[in-house]
Amino acid sequence: MTELSLVAALAKRLPRIGDDCAIVRHGAEDLLFTTDLLVEDVHFRRTEHPAADIGYRALARSLSDIASMGGDPRWATVALALPPWATERWVAGFYRGMLGLAARHKTEIVGGDFSRAPVLTADVMICGTVAPGEALRRNGACPGDAIYVSGALGRGRWRFVPRLTLGRQLRGLGATSCMDLSDGLSLDLHRLTTASRVAAALETIPVARGATLAEAFDRGEDYELLFTLPPAVKAPRSARRIGTIVRGRVGRVTYNGELVIPKGHDHFRSEPHP
Amino acid sequence: MTELSLVAALAKRLPRIGDDCAIVRHGAEDLLFTTDLLVEDVHFRRTEHPAADIGYRALARSLSDIASMGGDPRWATVALALPPWATERWVAGFYRGMLGLAARHKTEIVGGDFSRAPVLTADVMICGTVAPGEALRRNGACPGDAIYVSGALGRGRWRFVPRLTLGRQLRGLGATSCMDLSDGLSLDLHRLTTASRVAAALETIPVARGATLAEAFDRGEDYELLFTLPPAVKAPRSARRIGTIVRGRVGRVTYNGELVIPKGHDHFRSEPHP
Repeated sequence: MTELSLVAALAKRLPRIGDDCAIVRHGAEDLLFTTDLLVEDVHFRRTEHPAADIGYRALARSLSDIASMGGDPRWATVALALPPWATERWVAGFYRGMLGLAARHKTEIVGGDFSRAPVLTADVMICGTVAPGEALRRNGACPGDAIYVSGALGRGRWRFVPRLTLGRQLRGLGATSCMDLSDGLSLDLHRLTTASRVAAALETIPVARGATLAEAFDRGEDYELLFTLPPAVKAPRSARRIGTIVRGRVGRVTYNGELVIPKGHDHFRSEPHP
Repeated sequence: MTELSLVAALAKRLPRIGDDCAIVRHGAEDLLFTTDLLVEDVHFRRTEHPAADIGYRALARSLSDIASMGGDPRWATVALALPPWATERWVAGFYRGMLGLAARHKTEIVGGDFSRAPVLTADVMICGTVAPGEALRRNGACPGDAIYVSGALGRGRWRFVPRLTLGRQLRGLGATSCMDLSDGLSLDLHRLTTASRVAAALETIPVARGATLAEAFDRGEDYELLFTLPPAVKAPRSARRIGTIVRGRVGRVTYNGELVIPKGHDHFRSEPHP
């Protein structure tokens, strides 16, 4: 059972799944909801990262989902299941890393829950807001739109910077689609083009220093934004154009004419997605 | 490290913790946020409960938090970390139990996340709504108020019914305080009287059939509502009066003159709270 098959099975019953956040109409603003699990030995090893870095990343992943919708993060809840090795000092470090990032993005951690568990498990839910009907989604890319990423790919930084400012800017520019690159360009662009019922032709991939082209396509965890703009729109300065949305078999991605196989990271399996 | 010491340490930094839900002002309604972890071998054993019962309970615990604030549950996210034993069939059963209860209480599961993990871990966040400034809290009980519970204690049902209708009714009646009995009457009433800076004198405890008085005080997981009403207010029919709020040492609870030691269930430790 892969994450995709689980999500596909549930999506039939849970209609709002599909974008990085669920969008809900409420009063004068839309609410955005997203939640992300960070599990020891699946998403991180405790020997490799200080507590503050783990707390930072647990929040940053959910912030990135809000960024990809062009929203403003507002309120977060943090559920934390702690194994015996997690000392009070470790938990304090975890929250220090998290609260520093939360303050930077005006996000208030309003509540949470604790439990014991055999491995450290953090679930961070963020509720954000966005002007009604204006959230960026995955399903609006049109043939002719230019495809961009917000930075070089293939060497995701552990303490990555969630692209919240860019997300808001893209909303103002009328981006036709947007998502964050959590699982690798090949898989995520496959998802975006599938949701939009289009294909994509890639020409240039900005590869991070020290990374290979294969890593830029498949490695995941870059947390840059992947987005499309109508041809007439001038892209923000930090954006790197990687190709064009085209007509074609839905979900098909080519790179200089060659088929790109979606094989990014699936956190539900430990192996890359087939 | 107990759950209380963790929460106390965090409460200094996270000002909204203290009630069953965080309360946030947003537009024409207040938003309520709560999140609850359900962890295998801490909160349940998989050999003892079918998947649907575990899904039911994972959602019911968060619904009970919304009930205790007098709110309406609206949107939920579900993060699920699955061990190797959790088959697709098991996950389908889990969601069946959860979605049935969600439909009954007009709660929409809008999103979620999946991961692998060594033990099954579910985190259910619910966002609810309530008329501005009207959420029931723990800190308003006054000397002279009558103390009630919504049912007999000591034998919590696994598939308990979250007291959402009663919660709304109590809000209309002007209840001065309310919380749900998740950790046992002795510990939870200690918390309520501490938050309200009062003491409590108990006279009669409705003990569930098959339970002892000690279980009614300390066993936890009843998920009945514990609340206070001004003396002039007629209580709902289902309410059982158990005593009176009095002046005295803050947090002190007596039962027919004898001191009650707060020793309900602390899910962070496996032992009862000291």
